[in-house]
Amino acid sequence: MAVLIKNGTIVTAEGERKADIYAEGESITAIGEGLQPKEGDEVIDAEGKYVLPGGVDQHVHFSFSYKGSKTRGFETSNAAAVGGTTTLIEFVNQEQGRGLVETLDDYRKNDAEGIAMVDYAFHSVMTDPRDEVIEEIPKLAEAGYPTMKLFMAYKGQFFHADDDALLKALQKGKDAGVTIMVHAENADMIDVLTNQLIAEGKTAPYYHAVSRPPVVEAEATRRAIYLAELADAPLYVVHVTCKEALEELKAAYSRGQRVFGETCAHYLVLDESDLAKPGYEGAKYVCSPALRTEEHRDALWEAVDRKWLNAISSDHCGFDYAEQKHLGYGEGKSFADIPNGAPSLQNRLNILWTYGVCEGKLSPSRLVDLYATTPAKVNGLENKGQLAVGFDADIVIFDPAYEGTISYKTNLEGVDYSPFEGFAQKGRPETVFLRGQKIVEDAKYIGHKGQGKFVPGKPFGASYEW
Amino acid sequence: MAVLIKNGTIVTAEGERKADIYAEGESITAIGEGLQPKEGDEVIDAEGKYVLPGGVDQHVHFSFSYKGSKTRGFETSNAAAVGGTTTLIEFVNQEQGRGLVETLDDYRKNDAEGIAMVDYAFHSVMTDPRDEVIEEIPKLAEAGYPTMKLFMAYKGQFFHADDDALLKALQKGKDAGVTIMVHAENADMIDVLTNQLIAEGKTAPYYHAVSRPPVVEAEATRRAIYLAELADAPLYVVHVTCKEALEELKAAYSRGQRVFGETCAHYLVLDESDLAKPGYEGAKYVCSPALRTEEHRDALWEAVDRKWLNAISSDHCGFDYAEQKHLGYGEGKSFADIPNGAPSLQNRLNILWTYGVCEGKLSPSRLVDLYATTPAKVNGLENKGQLAVGFDADIVIFDPAYEGTISYKTNLEGVDYSPFEGFAQKGRPETVFLRGQKIVEDAKYIGHKGQGKFVPGKPFGASYEW
Amino acid sequence: MAVLIKNGTIVTAEGERKADIYAEGESITAIGEGLQPKEGDEVIDAEGKYVLPGGVDQHVHFSFSYKGSKTRGFETSNAAAVGGTTTLIEFVNQEQGRGLVETLDDYRKNDAEGIAMVDYAFHSVMTDPRDEVIEEIPKLAEAGYPTMKLFMAYKGQFFHADDDALLKALQKGKDAGVTIMVHAENADMIDVLTNQLIAEGKTAPYYHAVSRPPVVEAEATRRAIYLAELADAPLYVVHVTCKEALEELKAAYSRGQRVFGETCAHYLVLDESDLAKPGYEGAKYVCSPALRTEEHRDALWEAVDRKWLNAISSDHCGFDYAEQKHLGYGEGKSFADIPNGAPSLQNRLNILWTYGVCEGKLSPSRLVDLYATTPAKVNGLENKGQLAVGFDADIVIFDPAYEGTISYKTNLEGVDYSPFEGFAQKGRPETVFLRGQKIVEDAKYIGHKGQGKFVPGKPFGASYEW
Amino acid sequence: MAVLIKNGTIVTAEGERKADIYAEGESITAIGEGLQPKEGDEVIDAEGKYVLPGGVDQHVHFSFSYKGSKTRGFETSNAAAVGGTTTLIEFVNQEQGRGLVETLDDYRKNDAEGIAMVDYAFHSVMTDPRDEVIEEIPKLAEAGYPTMKLFMAYKGQFFHADDDALLKALQKGKDAGVTIMVHAENADMIDVLTNQLIAEGKTAPYYHAVSRPPVVEAEATRRAIYLAELADAPLYVVHVTCKEALEELKAAYSRGQRVFGETCAHYLVLDESDLAKPGYEGAKYVCSPALRTEEHRDALWEAVDRKWLNAISSDHCGFDYAEQKHLGYGEGKSFADIPNGAPSLQNRLNILWTYGVCEGKLSPSRLVDLYATTPAKVNGLENKGQLAVGFDADIVIFDPAYEGTISYKTNLEGVDYSPFEGFAQKGRPETVFLRGQKIVEDAKYIGHKGQGKFVPGKPFGASYEW
Repeated sequence: MAVLIKNGTIVTAEGERKADIYAEGESITAIGEGLQPKEGDEVIDAEGKYVLPGGVDQHVHFSFSYKGSKTRGFETSNAAAVGGTTTLIEFVNQEQGRGLVETLDDYRKNDAEGIAMVDYAFHSVMTDPRDEVIEEIPKLAEAGYPTMKLFMAYKGQFFHADDDALLKALQKGKDAGVTIMVHAENADMIDVLTNQLIAEGKTAPYYHAVSRPPVVEAEATRRAIYLAELADAPLYVVHVTCKEALEELKAAYSRGQRVFGETCAHYLVLDESDLAKPGYEGAKYVCSPALRTEEHRDALWEAVDRKWLNAISSDHCGFDYAEQKHLGYGEGKSFADIPNGAPSLQNRLNILWTYGVCEGKLSPSRLVDLYATTPAKVNGLENKGQLAVGFDADIVIFDPAYEGTISYKTNLEGVDYSPFEGFAQKGRPETVFLRGQKIVEDAKYIGHKGQGKFVPGKPFGASYEW
Repeated sequence: MAVLIKNGTIVTAEGERKADIYAEGESITAIGEGLQPKEGDEVIDAEGKYVLPGGVDQHVHFSFSYKGSKTRGFETSNAAAVGGTTTLIEFVNQEQGRGLVETLDDYRKNDAEGIAMVDYAFHSVMTDPRDEVIEEIPKLAEAGYPTMKLFMAYKGQFFHADDDALLKALQKGKDAGVTIMVHAENADMIDVLTNQLIAEGKTAPYYHAVSRPPVVEAEATRRAIYLAELADAPLYVVHVTCKEALEELKAAYSRGQRVFGETCAHYLVLDESDLAKPGYEGAKYVCSPALRTEEHRDALWEAVDRKWLNAISSDHCGFDYAEQKHLGYGEGKSFADIPNGAPSLQNRLNILWTYGVCEGKLSPSRLVDLYATTPAKVNGLENKGQLAVGFDADIVIFDPAYEGTISYKTNLEGVDYSPFEGFAQKGRPETVFLRGQKIVEDAKYIGHKGQGKFVPGKPFGASYEW
Repeated sequence: MAVLIKNGTIVTAEGERKADIYAEGESITAIGEGLQPKEGDEVIDAEGKYVLPGGVDQHVHFSFSYKGSKTRGFETSNAAAVGGTTTLIEFVNQEQGRGLVETLDDYRKNDAEGIAMVDYAFHSVMTDPRDEVIEEIPKLAEAGYPTMKLFMAYKGQFFHADDDALLKALQKGKDAGVTIMVHAENADMIDVLTNQLIAEGKTAPYYHAVSRPPVVEAEATRRAIYLAELADAPLYVVHVTCKEALEELKAAYSRGQRVFGETCAHYLVLDESDLAKPGYEGAKYVCSPALRTEEHRDALWEAVDRKWLNAISSDHCGFDYAEQKHLGYGEGKSFADIPNGAPSLQNRLNILWTYGVCEGKLSPSRLVDLYATTPAKVNGLENKGQLAVGFDADIVIFDPAYEGTISYKTNLEGVDYSPFEGFAQKGRPETVFLRGQKIVEDAKYIGHKGQGKFVPGKPFGASYEW
Repeated sequence: MAVLIKNGTIVTAEGERKADIYAEGESITAIGEGLQPKEGDEVIDAEGKYVLPGGVDQHVHFSFSYKGSKTRGFETSNAAAVGGTTTLIEFVNQEQGRGLVETLDDYRKNDAEGIAMVDYAFHSVMTDPRDEVIEEIPKLAEAGYPTMKLFMAYKGQFFHADDDALLKALQKGKDAGVTIMVHAENADMIDVLTNQLIAEGKTAPYYHAVSRPPVVEAEATRRAIYLAELADAPLYVVHVTCKEALEELKAAYSRGQRVFGETCAHYLVLDESDLAKPGYEGAKYVCSPALRTEEHRDALWEAVDRKWLNAISSDHCGFDYAEQKHLGYGEGKSFADIPNGAPSLQNRLNILWTYGVCEGKLSPSRLVDLYATTPAKVNGLENKGQLAVGFDADIVIFDPAYEGTISYKTNLEGVDYSPFEGFAQKGRPETVFLRGQKIVEDAKYIGHKGQGKFVPGKPFGASYEW
């Protein structure tokens, strides 16, 4: 059985064009004008609709442990599906004392396989840079995990990485085809400022932003760039949020370094003022790097339009408000106790379409590039992110006429709030195919647990092709 | 009747993928796996071959008058065809005292229609910036000529433009969707240096390069960028040849200006030493800007690989050696009397493949982007430059196994020399289709005069989409 | 007879220090503690006063012809004296058809000698760059005029210089020790904008600023820097007024070019809003480059404090309001008819002290550097601008306790207005010596006509010592 | 009793001028022409000689403990005296567990007072950044020690400082007038490279340079600049050695930060090839940052000429070759065991004169600025570093006619080698006065132990006056 989608406007990174698209088995097998179905084929009329590649969200945190509790995982990945994302790439922290591949293989077996409702890949996060762990880096590439992140921030946490670890990772990754990614914030700066703010009684969620101003991000970004220069290795900076860091990236790229970065949906539509909301509301918006001001938001929109940043991810992390976000509430507590992160698995495409495309900040084509095509390339997912013959038939039929409102109540993320609560939404994924199988119909999830499968990445992804 | 090309490796700006491609009428109507021909269709097996979009050469000079003689024109455009280029965009100088559109329409009627063997579009070149000419700029966009170049170089020539003309053109183009292009060299600097060199007896072709060093190009590039900033208009810099100009472009782009540039094939493989060849040989290599040193060549290769420059054109200008290039020869003559330009209509793709792809400097995909896809976008040619459904069936079947040698003797350019004479050539366009019609077979031109047609450009091309 | 000034605070570019200073004949012969007068010496107690070197104003226009009228000249130079300036350097336009040195020698003989009340030197302004004039440049250095300015602005005026003239001047000056200065504004940009504004009926004085925005200055500054790079020559940019031009200068300096600039007192305390004053008042503030906004003013204060600009001059040009400034008034007239310039000969030091030193923007020591020491060096006046043994005894005893108000009525400039009218003034030059002779006492001019003498400059001044 | 030095050429940061100089008591009391001695005064004829201010060497390490041994201290400070340096500023490491001021006061009492043969001041080096130590920083300023250095390099050593310590120091110093200085090298980078080199058997002294390439210095410099930006505090970078670090400093300065740096004599005349000398000779040249290549040396000469770096110090550290430098020699040892530093107390002025002034790279005036005037300002030594009335009578009569050869054998440094061994020397300090007392005569030290005294610095020195 195959599916033929007729009369839709196919959007690729190169432009828009009306055509039919035909998928047989798991792949797209033809794009053409006036394609004819075979007997038994499902035929969908997409007249008036956009046909987009399924989204690739390269920055997801599932099952995140924090002070005894844990966020939800792949059992909520249907949220991605209804949001138009058909591939998730999750960051998995190495368990202390265990190997990188071992941790990932186990996690994959136990927490993803048989559960995931969309396809998935993984980034390793090295937390324990002993010699034998460093030596293991090439095995990551062989195992289909060709990316590894290090956290420059979070002083004192087991997952914090110092320059020693980062440099070794860059050197070893260089030889093996593993692209190193960094969460770039200066851990010491944050620690000093945090302690000073708390000592001054400035403990409300808003001070989270004060404790990690743009210079914190800019410095770490610059340092990572220098380390990558020394290692002669590519570097990928996740969640870039401010002008200063952006300028460092642009300068490095312009000097010829293989340096790239992404931003996330929430940095494009939220800002510092959300952190200052009355009561304890601000805690919902505590993520790192922190939300910035309008000036930075404008710079980020320009950056994605110009492709100075090459991807927009969610950085989804589903801490709930009632319990986890309240760890920073009350006597003796402060913003520093609030877990960093917010749920946004489901709304990435909707936010980008409504506030990007509908407001003239992104063309549909650029959106596709940023939310699907380039993230797939970055991570070496060779058959993902494009509507082209031979690619996986991950297809979103997007209805631009829909109007609605975002709410955690109707989201499938399994979290008791959304940072985009009450945001107007224009358009929505109406039908979604995962490798040729329909998993969303009438904007409802109709697939099943375990339908998603692991997608190995090829070494270095697009690090040298950019 | 239609054509089905099977089993080739289709190369697009996004990558390579084995698939079949089907063209019916003038367009590509399907790309797919296992496509079936209809009765009567021509079926070509492209196994082991690359299938590329027909090239778009955005920088061509035909019928160029210089001191009483004139170069050949569209009657040699079959040279483009056998070279894999199916669309030419020619620069046509406004005739003094006549209108911009009038000049172009007449030229098109008299010199292209019924003659051209590939498709074609035009850039206007404003040479007579009176008020009524300025006012006419919007009509260029309406007439399908949405680009206009000005020559900042060539002091004393009628086609030289000063800042006054350039600024007005940028302002008016901004409103009308006409992208302004510049030949960026400081005319005064060149004039002063040229006179000084001649006064010192330094008249050989080599001194052409000395008379227009990189600073000459960098200054004019920077000035044009400032003028574009004042007009808040996009700017396209043709034939960028040196690091300094490149840095100015990168800096402007990074500041957010809509500023873009191309380079040309000869700047990537030739250099100053060619100008210094014994006897009067150097005259063959006199073009402007001048050939540079290896350092600049390396910078240009990096620039096209990184897309800091977004197109590679030919800047074809077919002065012959025996007569025209010899205008600078003999008593009382100097390099300043040699007409600037060289023939390269036929060898753009071959040079880029042999010295770019085969030497690992460009991927096939990046080559396609630079020689076809982006030039089409830049000039607003909506159905050119891509192998995608709905696009013109301009298709090159490229045989990578061919090995040969470039020579003017076998070229169709109608010029008595080639700057690439004796260069090894790897691979060649074996079969070429122009809007579905086969015009090259077994690397021989089999089409006919007048087969090419005019392709109007849409306003601003990709100037705001880049 | 000699003079001994006791107990004052001597201010030099290096700092402040209480000491006595002794001048015998025309020079300072001793600085010391507890110096003893010889019999007959005048002894002045400067307790509570500052002792400053006499100011060097490197940018003065006298006897400026404009549409049939002419500003006043050296007969008003007592205004400089009471303002604490003891050396003036005037820009003298080459007369068309005459030689550079010839023009200067004649002007000096006819318009300065026997008239000047302070010392003086000259900058040449080349307006007629024929070959024989270019050849004459070395003679300027020999004649003690080692600086030459060119006007990049003022399209259509005889004194406008194009790149051809500027490049040749830089080349020839390089060999001869003549530092080239430029008035850096893009003449074409201004011309285009001016005509457009007038066509739109925007003729009021305020539109003077609109017709020459910062980009106009930045572009010309950058171009001059490129020309200087090609000539490998030093460059001095007069009256820098905006951030953009400043950044170009800083970048060039940082690359190692010998590039320097000054600003003027009025750019530090006036702004665009003055041009917008009601009625025709704005005409008083029409000067070029135009007054800028606060943002630029702040940048200029930082620039002089950090010595990114190395001198503060007056750019005095004494057009009167009643007649000359009214040339742009009435039917068919516009801002473009208003002569550019304003009187400020007398108030440079007062403005800098009141609005710089008293507001903490400049230390007294930095002020001395900018208004006397460095201008003397820039122009190769070896015995001017410093309170040090062997230097000319040009000494200002400055009373910081004085409070007054600036008014053209009490000024000696002979102009019917002052751009600083009504400005509060703190401190004033109480006593001024010119080469050991007292010319100002109790803030009144007591010298006589012709007391000033010509001071030849040494080649290149500080162009290679900076 | 007083001294009158007649007929010498007095060199100041502002220029050169022939004059007499008179010192009475400890100060310069007059500079003048034809000064007359009083009875009993010593009169020296300095005809044909230069008269310079006594040098201020702001970067000295005495009594440096390393693996059980210790370098010599103030008992060798006569070496400075005969080298024309009359004030030393020593870096004193805080002893672990003790206070900053306490450590300095004790050191001063025990190791300097009664021993020093020239004047001296101190920089604190914070090694133990506990809260109570941070709180003590303002007391440094009160005690006359207004500068504090932190070592960003030297991972694992007690004196290594992380970003936490540096940021806190910058913040506290900002309020108190203490200028923070940094040894800027990335400790982790060095550690990783060092271990890798040793593992590869690359243990010879030459690999010291390979283990700390320019990027190591550039990164730390940039990071310190970011930390200073966050603290809004001035920053002083000691021993800048490479282009990349220099560019970071220039960029920060140009953005308006109060950021400054010095270089040292050996970086101007030695290079990497010295480290590669045969046998174990290279160990003599092991210092940090490491010696660089010619390209960097040229950049440093330009930087001091242009005042992008504002001082030249010695970074004297008198490890001996026989014992201490041999700690890296033999089985199981490597360059990493060689103590970092070299003796250069005596030859700073000689090196700068011979290889700077005599080779046209520095004017005598610029030399004076860099070796005496500015270092005094940087460190707030109000009466040091200038030949001006009221300043300490620290005077060097310099004989430019002398020719000799540098050798440790004739040096007074008390070290068994000199990095400048065998270097030709032109000119020498012939007579030196320390606060009016002659301590060097005929180039021989004639003073006595304990003649030097402590000079307190004023808060912030020139950090906000630059």
